Amino acid sequence: MMVIILNQQVTDAQKKHVLDTVLEAGATPYPAGPTTVVVPGNHAALTEKLASMPSVVQVVPIKSPYPLASREFHPEDTVIDIRGHIIGGQTPTIMAGPCSVESVEGIVEIAQAVKRLGGHLLRGGAFKPRSSPYSFQGHGEEGLKMMAIAREKTGLPIISEVMEPDKVALVAEYVDILQIGARNMQNYPLLREAGKSMKPVMLKRGLSGTVEEWLMSAEYILAQGNPNVILCERGIRTYEKATRNTMDLNAVPVVKHLSHLPIVVDPSHGVGKAAFVRPMARAGIAAGAHGVIVEIHPNPAKALSDADQTIDFAEFGQMVREVNLISDALSGSEKDHVLMHV
Amino acid sequence: MMVIILNQQVTDAQKKHVLDTVLEAGATPYPAGPTTVVVPGNHAALTEKLASMPSVVQVVPIKSPYPLASREFHPEDTVIDIRGHIIGGQTPTIMAGPCSVESVEGIVEIAQAVKRLGGHLLRGGAFKPRSSPYSFQGHGEEGLKMMAIAREKTGLPIISEVMEPDKVALVAEYVDILQIGARNMQNYPLLREAGKSMKPVMLKRGLSGTVEEWLMSAEYILAQGNPNVILCERGIRTYEKATRNTMDLNAVPVVKHLSHLPIVVDPSHGVGKAAFVRPMARAGIAAGAHGVIVEIHPNPAKALSDADQTIDFAEFGQMVREVNLISDALSGSEKDHVLMHV
Amino acid sequence: MMVIILNQQVTDAQKKHVLDTVLEAGATPYPAGPTTVVVPGNHAALTEKLASMPSVVQVVPIKSPYPLASREFHPEDTVIDIRGHIIGGQTPTIMAGPCSVESVEGIVEIAQAVKRLGGHLLRGGAFKPRSSPYSFQGHGEEGLKMMAIAREKTGLPIISEVMEPDKVALVAEYVDILQIGARNMQNYPLLREAGKSMKPVMLKRGLSGTVEEWLMSAEYILAQGNPNVILCERGIRTYEKATRNTMDLNAVPVVKHLSHLPIVVDPSHGVGKAAFVRPMARAGIAAGAHGVIVEIHPNPAKALSDADQTIDFAEFGQMVREVNLISDALSGSEKDHVLMHV
Amino acid sequence: MMVIILNQQVTDAQKKHVLDTVLEAGATPYPAGPTTVVVPGNHAALTEKLASMPSVVQVVPIKSPYPLASREFHPEDTVIDIRGHIIGGQTPTIMAGPCSVESVEGIVEIAQAVKRLGGHLLRGGAFKPRSSPYSFQGHGEEGLKMMAIAREKTGLPIISEVMEPDKVALVAEYVDILQIGARNMQNYPLLREAGKSMKPVMLKRGLSGTVEEWLMSAEYILAQGNPNVILCERGIRTYEKATRNTMDLNAVPVVKHLSHLPIVVDPSHGVGKAAFVRPMARAGIAAGAHGVIVEIHPNPAKALSDADQTIDFAEFGQMVREVNLISDALSGSEKDHVLMHV
Repeated sequence: MMVIILNQQVTDAQKKHVLDTVLEAGATPYPAGPTTVVVPGNHAALTEKLASMPSVVQVVPIKSPYPLASREFHPEDTVIDIRGHIIGGQTPTIMAGPCSVESVEGIVEIAQAVKRLGGHLLRGGAFKPRSSPYSFQGHGEEGLKMMAIAREKTGLPIISEVMEPDKVALVAEYVDILQIGARNMQNYPLLREAGKSMKPVMLKRGLSGTVEEWLMSAEYILAQGNPNVILCERGIRTYEKATRNTMDLNAVPVVKHLSHLPIVVDPSHGVGKAAFVRPMARAGIAAGAHGVIVEIHPNPAKALSDADQTIDFAEFGQMVREVNLISDALSGSEKDHVLMHV
Repeated sequence: MMVIILNQQVTDAQKKHVLDTVLEAGATPYPAGPTTVVVPGNHAALTEKLASMPSVVQVVPIKSPYPLASREFHPEDTVIDIRGHIIGGQTPTIMAGPCSVESVEGIVEIAQAVKRLGGHLLRGGAFKPRSSPYSFQGHGEEGLKMMAIAREKTGLPIISEVMEPDKVALVAEYVDILQIGARNMQNYPLLREAGKSMKPVMLKRGLSGTVEEWLMSAEYILAQGNPNVILCERGIRTYEKATRNTMDLNAVPVVKHLSHLPIVVDPSHGVGKAAFVRPMARAGIAAGAHGVIVEIHPNPAKALSDADQTIDFAEFGQMVREVNLISDALSGSEKDHVLMHV
Repeated sequence: MMVIILNQQVTDAQKKHVLDTVLEAGATPYPAGPTTVVVPGNHAALTEKLASMPSVVQVVPIKSPYPLASREFHPEDTVIDIRGHIIGGQTPTIMAGPCSVESVEGIVEIAQAVKRLGGHLLRGGAFKPRSSPYSFQGHGEEGLKMMAIAREKTGLPIISEVMEPDKVALVAEYVDILQIGARNMQNYPLLREAGKSMKPVMLKRGLSGTVEEWLMSAEYILAQGNPNVILCERGIRTYEKATRNTMDLNAVPVVKHLSHLPIVVDPSHGVGKAAFVRPMARAGIAAGAHGVIVEIHPNPAKALSDADQTIDFAEFGQMVREVNLISDALSGSEKDHVLMHV
Repeated sequence: MMVIILNQQVTDAQKKHVLDTVLEAGATPYPAGPTTVVVPGNHAALTEKLASMPSVVQVVPIKSPYPLASREFHPEDTVIDIRGHIIGGQTPTIMAGPCSVESVEGIVEIAQAVKRLGGHLLRGGAFKPRSSPYSFQGHGEEGLKMMAIAREKTGLPIISEVMEPDKVALVAEYVDILQIGARNMQNYPLLREAGKSMKPVMLKRGLSGTVEEWLMSAEYILAQGNPNVILCERGIRTYEKATRNTMDLNAVPVVKHLSHLPIVVDPSHGVGKAAFVRPMARAGIAAGAHGVIVEIHPNPAKALSDADQTIDFAEFGQMVREVNLISDALSGSEKDHVLMHV
């Protein structure tokens, strides 16, 4: 593959000329944002021709099947600014909130706890994917409105899931980050629409998604010109049933090696039992994750969904402390100096 | 759970009265078609009250989490008539065609071979889910038009995949069976929309879908009042990489025990290598499947996609012969007499 | 790799010369029986030199990591004669018996049923691998004696498991086939000892054994000069818990393509529920397996172990009938003509 | 189940009386060391009778299927003293060494590096389980002698694998800890023999071992009266092939919740790629593991085996520093206060 970088002042005519040149060579150009074009396949002759055009800044040959998501193309870490909070930098991002948004009072109370205890973003389910058509499917737009009120009261940015292409615009109106859930990791029409929205997107790994498939799904979003993708490891499905899922922390250094995109871990879904969320949050940060997303509730036993894996405020506070202790302890260390040399 | 069966002549007022009665008892009614209402939870008192209503034919208590898909509710096999071809009866259904529809001539040639060699339906990909945004995504509506032409020429009903809720109406206009692919097994908005279309739906098992989750996804379709769901086992994802996937034939008798819905197997995706498609088709029928769906091409090496797992016409003809030999051999035998007694 | 075939009249001195020649070339010779030597690595020059020696019949270059088990080295199917019964030919071999041998009367009764209903070998557990140290571990040698009595009364050859190298000689004294269980697929000292015994060995696939690892474990036995290895697919461990294990029938045509060794299937352990044993036995034969091994008991509910997956005599009889119907139906068909051409 | 604790001065006659009493009640007693007897099943009446005997200190009812390994029976953490080094306490244990012992000079050089860089035990393979019968199988006893020399020179205790019951006495003569490898997790004769040796045993989790099976395998060792078992998580087999195995750190807090036995992690095998060993070692400690075991070599590319996953001395030193930073950072925190209350 190759990625063609056009200069910022490229004119429509120049861009058309580039695309036509690619087409004439029998290749297919995929514009990915105003100044980027991806061309699959090997076209050495084309490379030279393109490189000599005045509107072309650079032609980057890429071996990876997910060029825009790869470190080959983009060696530095991607850093995403969400209302002033940085995801992908040195400080771990903490996102927390209920599985389902239940009421205005409830979500505000939780948001205040998240903020007080050191969290940075509020998560909450409004449109809920449920295995049964007869289960509570979330409060939908009403839930998003409640989250927006909680953001107003606390200043915390909000993240919530979107499940279908048609609802992307609606959800994007409310949230700061669109979440794409594990079941939809390969819902390509949804990925495309999320890409077009230009909102930051947190893409969860599917229950049986390989690292490669996951990065290729991220590529669907990036290929729309939306550079702000956050990956989230939330447990894969294995034979082991002592835990709800098997959080695959091995994927954290692997993804950081292959891609520049930030990666966070979700120990609530990853391990699926409240008592094990805190140690697995610690482990995620120690593995190099850029953050943690967890389900919290003032009284987990009464939560409308996911009660077993939801932690209370005290446990959450302790988790934040420990996560920060680990991050601080490692900050002097060249945490990942080897990774890039492999 | 319980399922309330209303009589065919139920009036709107009577139906409203039933729903109100459920609501007053603190339960939630889910209408599933004109004369069926599902009520989750245990409501013994309610059962008696409802049973005495003149518009209520029967109140069926169900333990299964997927009441409409379960044999508890519907003990006899579901049989689906597709333009005169029966799916779910004694004769195995053979569906075959290319991975991707490529041209009118191509699809007509293949359809004629399918018919000549003993197949019953023509499959073909028009909207293709692809891991990479830079891969050929199928000919879309044009592909469906080509399939419709092939149907016209051969009389074979057609089946093709739909990937997003918004396209259900469009695809349903052309096909006889809507296919929902493995990646979308838990795409609930898509399942709902497919249910509403009232077209027969073939629901593939997800790569890491459990039998229970699969049947609950079928329930999403049935809960819209659409009774015509066909299940398709197409291989699950395991540690073993000697085959592309691990076709789980164990699921065939399990599903037949738990559910009345017909089940077919897809050895092309299930095992993923052309040489092993025929023996696995045989095995699927011997396990009790109601049919087989396979990818065929006059020249597999030249197919636009899935070349490795596509068989040619001669191999397909041999497969049909062998599948029929097994089905005939077992027809005298009470194939599944034990299953219902477990 | 290469396999050196010596002529039947090779002298010790000639053989030593061959081995020395290999050693001098910096390679390592592994004698595997009186007239076979395996040499790992690529040694083209050596090939020529060896081929010209009078004691050398042939030097076969092999790409497979399991030369003796591969079809490259041994293109025709291996056929094993057990007291006159042929394993690996056209007729499916039926092995049946209790999970654990319980008493002389019990095992004789079962053996008579096996014979009467069309079975060919009697299986039974004497040394039992149990997850808990506090579970019944089998009757050991007493159990083998009981099986030998049952053989005497019925003429059926017997097969039973051996769990440790030290017990191979003891178990081999009684049985016609040594069984190596799934947990011991990679117990190399045990494999070596079973190889040395020169008894036929049935090697079960491990719960997470790949086809390649399984064939390499078979190679351990073959490398001792023991050519009589039978493979047994008995279910792998996957995420799916609707069945005890996931019997991987895909492995049947794959193994037949890669190896000349006979392969049987064990649907009792493979699917783990009595009601599904019969359809899965049928499926195994339809996939091309050379036989079936199942657990039977006159009263499964009272069996000392594995009650859930044990079938009764009536169900066993029906299974044998159906298995034979399928085998007969396919016998006219060139069942596997494509396999070798892949 | 129940565990009967006898007093330290119990006479043979008294012990016999206890065992007879159990037998008379129709139960089976399993003596596990001089003053412990395990009795499977529910025998309430028996409990009272036994509790009143003068030689009986306590009768502990246990729900767990692995009574001696469970926290129910033994609430405090097990701590094991290996030549003065404590495994299972607050300080992480670091074990390191080559995959295979290659030479005296080599192992001494590595042992000195382990010591200098902060490690506590020397690991090394002498008897090597290899997938192929034609691969280097380790130097056997010679390798153990080399390790013993390295211990002499550095004072580091040594750990090495034993693969068959017959070799337990031999290996135990040399090593301080017997290692039982992943392939042998359910090799019950080996577990029993290792138990009888009374040497500390490190039991690796099988590639498809569940946490429950793993603890039941530990029970086999404990049931011989050997209390010194260390568990080692070394990666399970899943569908994901971006890493060699999937190290399941979720198992760390789960095991610590269920059992009192110390648990260490092996990121070399767990993730299988050198660049990811250090972050996964950090993650293991952060998850609560009592130690780390890794493969190191002065020149990984030249190691006789496992070159891909072996780290060099510099990387090892950095790993030790980071592991200790995390352990120190968390030492003030009540690391696991919640676990015991689940």
